[in-house]
This record gives sequence, C-alpha cells and structure tokens, in this order.
Amino acid sequence: MSRQSNRTTDSKKMNSELFTLTYGALVTQLCKDYENDEEVNKQLDKMGYNIGVRLIEDFLARSSIGRCQDFRETADVIAKVAFKMYLGITPSVTNWSPGGDEFSLILENNPLADFVELPDNHSALIYSNLLCGVLRGALEMVQMAVDVKFAQDSLRGDNVTEIRMKFIKRIEENIPAGDE
Amino acid sequence: MSRQSNRTTDSKKMNSELFTLTYGALVTQLCKDYENDEEVNKQLDKMGYNIGVRLIEDFLARSSIGRCQDFRETADVIAKVAFKMYLGITPSVTNWSPGGDEFSLILENNPLADFVELPDNHSALIYSNLLCGVLRGALEMVQMAVDVKFAQDSLRGDNVTEIRMKFIKRIEENIPAGDE
Repeated sequence: MSRQSNRTTDSKKMNSELFTLTYGALVTQLCKDYENDEEVNKQLDKMGYNIGVRLIEDFLARSSIGRCQDFRETADVIAKVAFKMYLGITPSVTNWSPGGDEFSLILENNPLADFVELPDNHSALIYSNLLCGVLRGALEMVQMAVDVKFAQDSLRGDNVTEIRMKFIKRIEENIPAGDE
Repeated sequence: MSRQSNRTTDSKKMNSELFTLTYGALVTQLCKDYENDEEVNKQLDKMGYNIGVRLIEDFLARSSIGRCQDFRETADVIAKVAFKMYLGITPSVTNWSPGGDEFSLILENNPLADFVELPDNHSALIYSNLLCGVLRGALEMVQMAVDVKFAQDSLRGDNVTEIRMKFIKRIEENIPAGDE
C-alpha cells in the first residue's frame, strides 16, 4: 500500500489492546504462511524494517528531535520518546558495553505480547521480532546502521524482555555539495 | 496464540501510527496470500471477528459499562466509548432506519487507513474490513447478532467512511435455571 507524503501530527491516542490482538493475527497468519519459525522471524523483521523506514518521518515530525550527539542520546530517545509514543511504555536502558556501542532495552512488559502464550510447536518463534526491524529501519533513515535482536523474551520463559542494540556504523549521507 | 485469562486494565496510551503501519503489513500479506480482494475481505472480517470476541472482555473491564437498554444506547457506546478507546476517534452516529434497527457510523478519518492509497488492481478491497468483524464478534459476546459492513469508504473515493450496522436478533443466553 502506498502512502501519501503529507502527514499531520494530530495525535490519536488509543489503548494498545486492539493493536495487540491485530499483531497477534499478523503473527498467526505468518505462521500459517511459512514453513518454520525462523522464516516467520525473518519475515517479521523485514516487515518491521519497512515500517521503520516510514515511521521515522512521523517520529521526527511529532517529537521535533534533532540529530543525536552520540549513541547514548540515541538510546535515551528510543526508550523515553519513541517507545512511549508508539507503544505507551518506557523501557530501561542498561547493560552498556565498555566501548559504548551496545546497550539493552529492558521491557518490563511488552504490549505486543500481552496475554500471549507461545504454543509448544513454536518454541523458536521470536514473537515480537517486528520491533527489531522497526528500530533497524528507522535508524537507518537517520544514517545509523545498527544490529537489533532479542536477547531475552519473557514469552520464552526469560524473566524480562531484552532487546539488544549494537551500533555498526554511521551511514554516509549523499548531500549535494554546498548543503550542510 | 492463546491468551491467559487474567487481565489488567492499566492503560497504555499510544499513538496510532505504528498500529496503522502494522495493519497495512497485515493487509499486504493477505493480498499476497489470497487470490482476490473478495477473499481478503472475507479473511479480514474473520480475523476481526476473532479479535472482537476477545476484545469485548477488555472493553467491559475498562469501561465498566453494563447492559445497554436498546440499540440506540449500543450505538452511542460503540461510537463514544469503544472507538475512542481503541482507535482514538469518535465517529458520529447517523442515518437511523425508521424502525431503529439500523444506523451508520461516520468516520471523518479512519486511523487504519491513514495515508493509504489503494493500488488500481485492488479496487474491490475493503481495506478496513477487520473493523466490521471486530464489531460483529464483540456484540455477539453480549448477545447481539448484528450485520456490519462498509457502506462508503473514503479509500475508494467516497467523501466519508461509513460503517452500516443492522440489528438482527438478540441471542438467547444459556443461563442455568435459578440464575438471573
């Protein structure tokens, strides 16, 4: 589906429950469509990427946030502004690598997975993998290549849900000579 | 995906944009999976139904709304409470049939379809048909059989988006003798 380029930033705040159930319908459909969990995980990541590259425009318009100075600021903006805006939660930012190029987002609760239980035959399913794709796609649009994956998932028996983000490189912008 | 029976009513308010894009991914996936738009419409309605029969429990818990006295009250609760809660909008209730058994919900804007344009080869697609299923499923759980369909859709060139709801019958409850 194509999207028009004009966007408004009028806010339509809503509860997450209908979104949660619709996301569940999407994952269920993909589980029917693809042979195994690994394929579903890959597909969710890909869909998320396509969503992220579009969502960033809306995010920048709504948040009026400019370029982050460093990866620590990026981490804070993702946790405190972006997650709050689109999922209504604020994950904590922890487990920084000594080099400052990796951190974790800890989700106390994950709206996408509210009330979900994985069936035994889907033990390799990374149910919320769409989120990794969204983060990867959105950051790529602001010239940051990152690796994003679930390190822990409460759906799979872990105590918390942990998304691990690793900075890979800054992507060169192709700016016409003379522009900033 | 199965759901645990315990629910909390803590509110996670969020913007609709991520939901809108995720819904778009779902519709796009179904368009890949099924032969024609009619099949996709049917599938969206079916998914919506399954969502509705689950969502009603959450709705009743959050809204503390009891049994509606008549279809007019039902219409108001759907427009002013349910749509507001889960989509962040309040459709207007109009076009009552003389018998009071049919009305329309007019959506000035439809968050599910924000920025979407239907490709020419999907002219029969009822993009937001999930909503009809949700309404049908949710109302069935409170003993009302209703017919729900899109009468107009701004995605298909109409001026507004109109959901037409028709009361069919009250469903008999199977209550053990002695109970209310």
